Amino acid sequence: MASPVVVISSCSSPEEENRCTFNQHTSPSEELLLEDQMRRKLKFFFMNPCEKFWARGRKPWKLAIQILKIAVVTIQLVFFGLSNQMVVAFKEENTIAFKHLFLKGYMDRTDDTYAVYTQNDVYHQIIFAVNQYLQLRNTSVGNHAYEKKGTEQSAMAICQRFYRQGNICPGNDTFDIDPEIETVQKNTHYMMIFDALVILICLASLILCLRSVVRGLQLQQEFVNFFLLHYKKEVSVSDRMEFVNGWYIMIIISDILTIIGSILKMEIQAKSLTSYDVCSILLGTSTMLVWLGVIRYLGFFQKYNLLILTLQAALPNVIRFCCCAAMIYLGYCFCGWIVLGPYHDKFRSLNMVSECLFSLINGDDMFATFAKMQQKSYLVWLFSRIYLYSFISLFIYMILSLFIALITDTYETIKHYQQDGFPETELRTFISECKDLPNSGKYRLEDDTPVSIFCCCKK
Amino acid sequence: MASPVVVISSCSSPEEENRCTFNQHTSPSEELLLEDQMRRKLKFFFMNPCEKFWARGRKPWKLAIQILKIAVVTIQLVFFGLSNQMVVAFKEENTIAFKHLFLKGYMDRTDDTYAVYTQNDVYHQIIFAVNQYLQLRNTSVGNHAYEKKGTEQSAMAICQRFYRQGNICPGNDTFDIDPEIETVQKNTHYMMIFDALVILICLASLILCLRSVVRGLQLQQEFVNFFLLHYKKEVSVSDRMEFVNGWYIMIIISDILTIIGSILKMEIQAKSLTSYDVCSILLGTSTMLVWLGVIRYLGFFQKYNLLILTLQAALPNVIRFCCCAAMIYLGYCFCGWIVLGPYHDKFRSLNMVSECLFSLINGDDMFATFAKMQQKSYLVWLFSRIYLYSFISLFIYMILSLFIALITDTYETIKHYQQDGFPETELRTFISECKDLPNSGKYRLEDDTPVSIFCCCKK
Amino acid sequence: MASPVVVISSCSSPEEENRCTFNQHTSPSEELLLEDQMRRKLKFFFMNPCEKFWARGRKPWKLAIQILKIAVVTIQLVFFGLSNQMVVAFKEENTIAFKHLFLKGYMDRTDDTYAVYTQNDVYHQIIFAVNQYLQLRNTSVGNHAYEKKGTEQSAMAICQRFYRQGNICPGNDTFDIDPEIETVQKNTHYMMIFDALVILICLASLILCLRSVVRGLQLQQEFVNFFLLHYKKEVSVSDRMEFVNGWYIMIIISDILTIIGSILKMEIQAKSLTSYDVCSILLGTSTMLVWLGVIRYLGFFQKYNLLILTLQAALPNVIRFCCCAAMIYLGYCFCGWIVLGPYHDKFRSLNMVSECLFSLINGDDMFATFAKMQQKSYLVWLFSRIYLYSFISLFIYMILSLFIALITDTYETIKHYQQDGFPETELRTFISECKDLPNSGKYRLEDDTPVSIFCCCKK
Amino acid sequence: MASPVVVISSCSSPEEENRCTFNQHTSPSEELLLEDQMRRKLKFFFMNPCEKFWARGRKPWKLAIQILKIAVVTIQLVFFGLSNQMVVAFKEENTIAFKHLFLKGYMDRTDDTYAVYTQNDVYHQIIFAVNQYLQLRNTSVGNHAYEKKGTEQSAMAICQRFYRQGNICPGNDTFDIDPEIETVQKNTHYMMIFDALVILICLASLILCLRSVVRGLQLQQEFVNFFLLHYKKEVSVSDRMEFVNGWYIMIIISDILTIIGSILKMEIQAKSLTSYDVCSILLGTSTMLVWLGVIRYLGFFQKYNLLILTLQAALPNVIRFCCCAAMIYLGYCFCGWIVLGPYHDKFRSLNMVSECLFSLINGDDMFATFAKMQQKSYLVWLFSRIYLYSFISLFIYMILSLFIALITDTYETIKHYQQDGFPETELRTFISECKDLPNSGKYRLEDDTPVSIFCCCKK
Repeated sequence: MASPVVVISSCSSPEEENRCTFNQHTSPSEELLLEDQMRRKLKFFFMNPCEKFWARGRKPWKLAIQILKIAVVTIQLVFFGLSNQMVVAFKEENTIAFKHLFLKGYMDRTDDTYAVYTQNDVYHQIIFAVNQYLQLRNTSVGNHAYEKKGTEQSAMAICQRFYRQGNICPGNDTFDIDPEIETVQKNTHYMMIFDALVILICLASLILCLRSVVRGLQLQQEFVNFFLLHYKKEVSVSDRMEFVNGWYIMIIISDILTIIGSILKMEIQAKSLTSYDVCSILLGTSTMLVWLGVIRYLGFFQKYNLLILTLQAALPNVIRFCCCAAMIYLGYCFCGWIVLGPYHDKFRSLNMVSECLFSLINGDDMFATFAKMQQKSYLVWLFSRIYLYSFISLFIYMILSLFIALITDTYETIKHYQQDGFPETELRTFISECKDLPNSGKYRLEDDTPVSIFCCCKK
Repeated sequence: MASPVVVISSCSSPEEENRCTFNQHTSPSEELLLEDQMRRKLKFFFMNPCEKFWARGRKPWKLAIQILKIAVVTIQLVFFGLSNQMVVAFKEENTIAFKHLFLKGYMDRTDDTYAVYTQNDVYHQIIFAVNQYLQLRNTSVGNHAYEKKGTEQSAMAICQRFYRQGNICPGNDTFDIDPEIETVQKNTHYMMIFDALVILICLASLILCLRSVVRGLQLQQEFVNFFLLHYKKEVSVSDRMEFVNGWYIMIIISDILTIIGSILKMEIQAKSLTSYDVCSILLGTSTMLVWLGVIRYLGFFQKYNLLILTLQAALPNVIRFCCCAAMIYLGYCFCGWIVLGPYHDKFRSLNMVSECLFSLINGDDMFATFAKMQQKSYLVWLFSRIYLYSFISLFIYMILSLFIALITDTYETIKHYQQDGFPETELRTFISECKDLPNSGKYRLEDDTPVSIFCCCKK
Repeated sequence: MASPVVVISSCSSPEEENRCTFNQHTSPSEELLLEDQMRRKLKFFFMNPCEKFWARGRKPWKLAIQILKIAVVTIQLVFFGLSNQMVVAFKEENTIAFKHLFLKGYMDRTDDTYAVYTQNDVYHQIIFAVNQYLQLRNTSVGNHAYEKKGTEQSAMAICQRFYRQGNICPGNDTFDIDPEIETVQKNTHYMMIFDALVILICLASLILCLRSVVRGLQLQQEFVNFFLLHYKKEVSVSDRMEFVNGWYIMIIISDILTIIGSILKMEIQAKSLTSYDVCSILLGTSTMLVWLGVIRYLGFFQKYNLLILTLQAALPNVIRFCCCAAMIYLGYCFCGWIVLGPYHDKFRSLNMVSECLFSLINGDDMFATFAKMQQKSYLVWLFSRIYLYSFISLFIYMILSLFIALITDTYETIKHYQQDGFPETELRTFISECKDLPNSGKYRLEDDTPVSIFCCCKK
Repeated sequence: MASPVVVISSCSSPEEENRCTFNQHTSPSEELLLEDQMRRKLKFFFMNPCEKFWARGRKPWKLAIQILKIAVVTIQLVFFGLSNQMVVAFKEENTIAFKHLFLKGYMDRTDDTYAVYTQNDVYHQIIFAVNQYLQLRNTSVGNHAYEKKGTEQSAMAICQRFYRQGNICPGNDTFDIDPEIETVQKNTHYMMIFDALVILICLASLILCLRSVVRGLQLQQEFVNFFLLHYKKEVSVSDRMEFVNGWYIMIIISDILTIIGSILKMEIQAKSLTSYDVCSILLGTSTMLVWLGVIRYLGFFQKYNLLILTLQAALPNVIRFCCCAAMIYLGYCFCGWIVLGPYHDKFRSLNMVSECLFSLINGDDMFATFAKMQQKSYLVWLFSRIYLYSFISLFIYMILSLFIALITDTYETIKHYQQDGFPETELRTFISECKDLPNSGKYRLEDDTPVSIFCCCKK
């Protein structure tokens, strides 16, 4: 073997001097071997699933599970939504029916206010409602009733037996009524089994992703130690962050939400809980995250990547700019609320002012906003004109245009990066010295058996 | 003649070596002649109609037929639409009249719901409708009646005799009533002859375009063989695709749709079919394609071409980007449907969620979407605010801006191409060596007679 | 004096050879003098009013008249509009009152349809209207009546005596009624004198502009002859067009419209004509053109000019592109009309389809367009979704973005022109050799007296 | 020390000659010392609060007061707005109740018109209103009454005792009524003390900012004199303007508005004034300015600065361009008003025309604007189509695109400035020769004691 002295003497170029201050316990050739291994390990770690398959024959199990998850989570959501849609329709139709039955002279209108203004009306209303309630069995169209058990009357019960949705088409004179009678209470056993399946798949995904994150942190630690030992330098924070894959974090969050949501859903179906809103928020958010996750896999193709990278790179600038714009926005919000509030429906509460201004920025409901201003005070009316014209002009012509300038600029920067190479980081420079292609076979570990049914466990 | 040896010895530059491995059965000069012929053939093939006329005196028959087709197809559509408009107006007015005649207490309103809520109302409604039907002859304003033939009554018939559209103008106190009486059933013979004409023209266009496509494929095969033989290389797929003119494909599709649609239309007019919807979709789509086809002829002018090429070149990137955006969009769709559905009219069904979000992206109905959210659950209300603000900001400020960046970038690329030349392909390089101008007379075949009335057949 | 030979011998550079082939009848020095004069004449012609004042002390009379015209034309329009506003309000209020008086059971509603559906209703309506008319004097609130002259009754007359607009404010319990009675018929003499003044000013402006145009054409002819004689070349068409000032053409059109419109207005006020619509279109268009004309004067400042030049330069490309877009647009129009027409209110007529699609491009009424589609035929409903999504995406994301790319590109081109000089034309090169500044005194003619009150006539 | 002669001899480079023409009364070294002091003074003056702290240990009192001001001014506004919201709700609800009580047959509708058309109706209305007033005590739902004192009746009084806002949820059958009774008259003492606090803080801010402005003007004068004496040159106007900080001017205006507004508010609360509108405009505007002021502090970070600078730099061009666009806009306004006014609700008054066109530019209410056009006159209808299509196309496709081009261009200019340095002014060049860092200690004055509680006074 070559003596250490020779190696050190070869360190003529200053940029390689760091490397030459070797740990004297290992010989230089072993050092080089270690370095090569580390490079290969890192390169393998940053490969996409397809490359990993070529490199070690590792099946893309995580990818498969994610795709399966998209399917089952979406199916679960759709079933949940459909059953829910029916409940809501039932609730609304009955609410309207009750209004017509119990409120005297009630008429369907858009604004949905119902008020009485005289004492007589109040008494008549009450008497009418009570009478209607008492004779409900005789008046309602058949599906609302109350029972008389001995001397006491039960609370009102609703028994539902519907014809299936008929179809009356006055155009061609046909009445398409399905004589089958449904009784809106199906067996929920299958649904609960499906929910359990979703929980299992998400658990599997959760465990695999957690393992990947942990491995990333381990490799990070390994690399930090290696780098400190061999190059006598700390790894920069941004390089360290590269080991923590944000997509895995997203998948983990989504999995946790799905699991909690599915458990809640099973409880709701078993009628031991009614927190429907929490359940729907959990399932909805998790499904959204699952679909967002697909973008990661699209990003493995270079041309898709350009667009995703642009959005990613522009985000900090956009947020920064939003902060500035938010100050102007808040100023206008407070000012509009206090001055126009008493004279304009849309400026009644701070929350509505914000929604109104946000809509105006995006070119919605502008004329209505101008027109609904009450002309009681000329001073305030004039103020409202200056206020609205200046706000809209400022935001649409200046600020939205600047957004476009920001994105266009970032797009060009990223495009040039893709053509001429991204700015080099220490981590990338270190890895790039390993030129082995994924299918070169050099990534294969000694105990890698040919592809087998058990490779999942080995992963 | 020069000996083959001499030719081979002249192959000093490496890029011409391919060409030198000649088929030894033909002499080099014959080879060069063949090559020239092939070049001229290809150049002629890729000429526009005007250049083809200069080159061989070939009349632009296809162009003429296309222009004729635009006229007749549009005229056919307009007549179809106008007759249709009358039918629809008649149907709607009668539907409203029937509602007023047969529904007790019916009032015109925007939402168009009509419901009864008590048993009494149901019975009264039915009795009212039956009574109205029985005395229809006496109550209706003259154009609805039923006949009594012996003991049995016929179904209701409508006899239509209208005054022409009158004009009552309260502003200047005039009643302009045309006393002529129309009986909404015209002779359809002329229309059917016109439809047959349309079918004939489309058949002619179809045959000419099919022939052009076939010729293109033949020339493609010829060129592929020639190239393989002389240059020992396969022609690339993108070069092969150049021989298949997408515009012809579009014209062929449009012609087939028009022919089927016109046949259907004749059947409908002959009252042997009533599939009006299919017919209108066929004719509508084909007319749209015919008009789109005009862009091809505009593209023969360089400056128009710039814009069309930009759209064409940007399309793949736009579609690619749409895929990414669609993931986020779908995520938001599912999430909005499940969480906001029970509290917001516009989020009732997945389909409506998609339409609502699509409208929001384009700045429509934003305030209404904010305002219609029911405030029953504070948690969901808060979620809806985060949901809507984040969705709108993300899509309008990030994604729409990126579209602009994409198009602007493509526009500049194409502009530079037009100034500095498009990237060379093998096909283009091969053709570009032929410098003969269209009117040089070199494209004229030996049997080309001067322009005659029969040149259509020869084409 | 120098001999001609010497001059010709100096023509060594080839680009000056043209100039050397002098007309041999005049000596070269005279030639040079003539050329200098022509240059100075042209340079003076293309000066702006301010420079012309410095050059020859010529007062900017046309400018002054234009500014005066803006004032008087706008004042005339405002008076016309205000009187008109009152007439319209009167007409509308009375129409509503008549509807309530003569139509049984009429109620104010948004859609403004009123129909009767049974024979009884028809008779009752007619009887009601006749009865109301007969007892109108007793029922109406005082300002509608008919006179009885002997046996015959006059037609209904309306006598108007109003309290001035009162102000009832329920908020602070005050009734602010002005007891003065107005009788909504003022003296129109002053107005007619003012109209005559407007006509006079426009006539002056018209004559001055016509003279300028004629002078431009004379100078053009002079220059064309000069150029042909001395340089043996034709002046290019684009150079010739520079002599015809488009702004003058616009002012001439505007003046003619104002004069005709004002004459019509005087006739209307004198009650000998009632063609109000024609008059308002003439006056409105002319006022719009007068205001557009102000842009010309803003363009004399360099920084304003950049923006105007950009719009001017982008216009041909925009129009060209609009042609292409119009083909797609027309295709969608026809297709939408024929397929969706029977199922969608907004697609009833071709005209409405165009308005609906145009609104959709600009992000208006999108959700309503989606929602109003009738779901009678699933096939057509599906078609409508594909139709609307594809149309909106294509136009908003592709075509509008391309507009921005076009304008941005033109803006940069013009900016570089302003920095590095506009592309040279022969006319510009010819003039640019004259370096005399406006205030150098060299432009002053021999008969230029110092500034006097009569300089207008001399112009 | 070096002799003056030596110094002068060193003035070899021509650009330093100005400096060498020293005032001969002071020795060159003293001169250099003076110059250094001036540079340091100026550099300190243009530092941001954080740098000033490092340079002289000066606490950022103004910054602290501004942050405190944002808090107290916003809190004041929110309390004012909330109390106001309740007053408005009370007023509106009672107005509606009164309408129902005193107007016969009044119905809630969107357009809110109420008219009577016959004499009978007028009398019945008046009698009904009088009767309702007389028996108000018996008919109204309890909170409107009038007292009978002996023979005379008092005016109507309203006594308010409300149940707290209840919550009736028909969905899950619960009535959530809070039995506590509230009596809209809280103690306003605390509020007035808070208002006084706001006035005090604004006074402090006002005095500090005024002092800074005065100091700026003093330093400006000092620098002008120094520059004139040593460099024999006048300081340019733009350099002089740099000493006047626009942000301070804004804070001063905001403080004055807040002080006047708060005094008015105290008067209103003490019921000695009712000019609520003026007060709300003053407080609203001042709060808006206070929030806008936050942008200044964000601008201290470089990346935020880029965006703010872009908007600042683009503003003159945008305003310039708006002038041109305004001419076209005004032309369209006048023309639309006069021609379409009689046939279109939205074109009734000039003010509404402007609002309608402004909304159209931003893509709002387009279809409605097209659709609401009355079809009484075909000529005007045709004109309206040309008018609307041309206006919308011109403004949306040409002018809005140009805005984007303007902003994008400015963004790139400013970005290059930030990378390559801003254009040098004399002031900047003068200061830039001082290289002392803020924390170098060289800015510390001799009497600078270590940080103490009294440093505010020393500032």
